[in-house]
Amino acid sequence: MTDPKPYFEAHVFSCTNRRPDGHKRGSCAARGSEKLRDYMKARARELGLDGRVRINAAGCLDRCELGPVLVVYPEGVWYTYRSFADVDAILETHVIGGGRVERLMLKPEQKELLPEQVG
Amino acid sequence: MTDPKPYFEAHVFSCTNRRPDGHKRGSCAARGSEKLRDYMKARARELGLDGRVRINAAGCLDRCELGPVLVVYPEGVWYTYRSFADVDAILETHVIGGGRVERLMLKPEQKELLPEQVG
Repeated sequence: MTDPKPYFEAHVFSCTNRRPDGHKRGSCAARGSEKLRDYMKARARELGLDGRVRINAAGCLDRCELGPVLVVYPEGVWYTYRSFADVDAILETHVIGGGRVERLMLKPEQKELLPEQVG
Repeated sequence: MTDPKPYFEAHVFSCTNRRPDGHKRGSCAARGSEKLRDYMKARARELGLDGRVRINAAGCLDRCELGPVLVVYPEGVWYTYRSFADVDAILETHVIGGGRVERLMLKPEQKELLPEQVG
């Protein structure tokens, strides 16, 4: 039996976990992820992606030091993002265009943001 | 540039969305998903999967009528599940064994649970 075809062409999970202020790992929500995720959901709707693409909130994705983070499946590509412009780039270049926003991509072994990712 | 290797070998998202009692679509939490997801997290830890496998809560996955639902990425395989035994089967057969729990799998076009899925 082969697996069914994907239910969503792109399934985006944005971490919206919140830790108390001052926690040593920080948290995505403490860095503004909820507002970014709300914008992404609204923007995906404006772009006519409803039904084919799903933008979901998720609990802690355990890469807090790199946050706010999101992951796009089924590709399994992770991004750090911190502005509406970053959200637009991920939606337009990756989700719609099938490309990659290389500047914002996270490597599996990465433990700290790169200078160009801090912006 | 090729994509990095997956950060998690298996990334499970369990819908824990809750709608008010009596809502026509129902919701995963109203059908017990929070307890099932807590069990799944604890069981994954007992099975030594921490670090390689991540069990996450997610907002509404928009397949409410089939809930409680979860999706395992990067495969993109969806399941309905309603008991601790179902959680064990998904963890042991799919996440650890790389197989599929065919009885619980959801098809992309599926709108209602099958008799054998209602249990």
